[in-house]
Amino acid sequence: MLTNPVIETLMNRKSIRKYTDQAPVDEVVETVVRAGQQAPFAYQMGSVLLSRKRAKNPFKAPLFFIVCVDAHRHEAIMAQRGWKMVQNDLSVLLLGMQDAAYMAENMVIAAESLGLGSCFLGGIPYRAEAFIKQYHLPPRVFPLVGLTMGYPAEKAAPRPRYPLEVTLGEGAYPEMDEAQVQRAMAEMDEGYLAQNYYRKLKAMIPLEDGREETFTYETYSWTEHISRKTGQWEQSPEALLEQLAKCGFHIPGFEAAK
Amino acid sequence: MLTNPVIETLMNRKSIRKYTDQAPVDEVVETVVRAGQQAPFAYQMGSVLLSRKRAKNPFKAPLFFIVCVDAHRHEAIMAQRGWKMVQNDLSVLLLGMQDAAYMAENMVIAAESLGLGSCFLGGIPYRAEAFIKQYHLPPRVFPLVGLTMGYPAEKAAPRPRYPLEVTLGEGAYPEMDEAQVQRAMAEMDEGYLAQNYYRKLKAMIPLEDGREETFTYETYSWTEHISRKTGQWEQSPEALLEQLAKCGFHIPGFEAAK
Repeated sequence: MLTNPVIETLMNRKSIRKYTDQAPVDEVVETVVRAGQQAPFAYQMGSVLLSRKRAKNPFKAPLFFIVCVDAHRHEAIMAQRGWKMVQNDLSVLLLGMQDAAYMAENMVIAAESLGLGSCFLGGIPYRAEAFIKQYHLPPRVFPLVGLTMGYPAEKAAPRPRYPLEVTLGEGAYPEMDEAQVQRAMAEMDEGYLAQNYYRKLKAMIPLEDGREETFTYETYSWTEHISRKTGQWEQSPEALLEQLAKCGFHIPGFEAAK
Repeated sequence: MLTNPVIETLMNRKSIRKYTDQAPVDEVVETVVRAGQQAPFAYQMGSVLLSRKRAKNPFKAPLFFIVCVDAHRHEAIMAQRGWKMVQNDLSVLLLGMQDAAYMAENMVIAAESLGLGSCFLGGIPYRAEAFIKQYHLPPRVFPLVGLTMGYPAEKAAPRPRYPLEVTLGEGAYPEMDEAQVQRAMAEMDEGYLAQNYYRKLKAMIPLEDGREETFTYETYSWTEHISRKTGQWEQSPEALLEQLAKCGFHIPGFEAAK
């Protein structure tokens, strides 16, 4: 693998959930968001909300960003040009989520390069209504992802990843054989166990439906953790569709199907 | 604004659509994808397809990646753990698209740092069926975005972006006043006109529904361009929903609404 200061920054990044008291100065905030803006894609449909109210922020982080899909600004500019949005909301979200996500990842990398740590929070869309109130969001703005940021008060090693062989396929999808499944799981599970990751976070997800617990923090690791999330949570799309609707985005057929 | 080699790389990145004949070596490809994998988020639901068949690739790029949302691999690993996916597809896509997008952006930045240029292609999901065939995709893999890559054979300046003042809001959404709308539009339109961007690409979008053309390449710029896309294209979600369904993802109510 090749390396240089940028690759090192990308490879060294890990989620940080403990922060020092040092408040990043305005120039740091502006650099992070400005570098975020320079990310490529379609419509620049990303906007960023910021709270520096540390006591109320997740992990008491000095900075708490919410990166939003912003069709409101887009439509205001279309109106100046004499146009109305006609594109369906699923397509708008498909492209707008990428605008916002590429921006958010640039923010993560810029922060890392300036010595700050960060942590993504993926549950934000399920609480969209609260952010509409808190930040006075107009319709057509969808809070996509949270991002805490500050100077690290914990040390951590980069987290493990799947082997490249099950991630990259040239000419064809990289279908796993049995041995590759085992190697991929071992890479992830042994890597997280070596970091004592879930024990430190006290993050074992309880079993539902009367399933009997057979794991301890000696054995509970990444593949079991993600399986419990997608094997137990959010069976119905209704909560997410309702939050989208509160933001003024309508997925076709939802009302019809209810 | 602060700077360092990483920030410079983020700020200097622009889409490149012309490439030299030089083929990136395997180690470059592996470094780019491996750096992509290290991006943070939820489930590592990103997979990457690669074509080096230059003659068939968009812009005849030496490398053409398709970054996919991959629930297939995720579910194979869940099965080993004795779990079945129960999470609804809208939630899976919400998180899986972010997994894939953060990965894709890291690939863009890693490539830039190694002297390669790249260009995102956002229309890939509308042609998912073709990629299912070409790459033998199993069900539950959704081609999210294309990414051409190679050594640049064109020079370009970074593209303009909205002013920070209409992108970042501390404590409240950054609602634009009239002057800010004008400044945001001027920043984008004058910036692209100064680069002769749309004229060079011959990219003026035709008007539909008998609207009369009043623009030339002297005046046609970014805000008109994006307005014509979202003001004319993809009014119905059906095409996208059908492609999602062919990939094995079902948005609730679609069948009911048809």
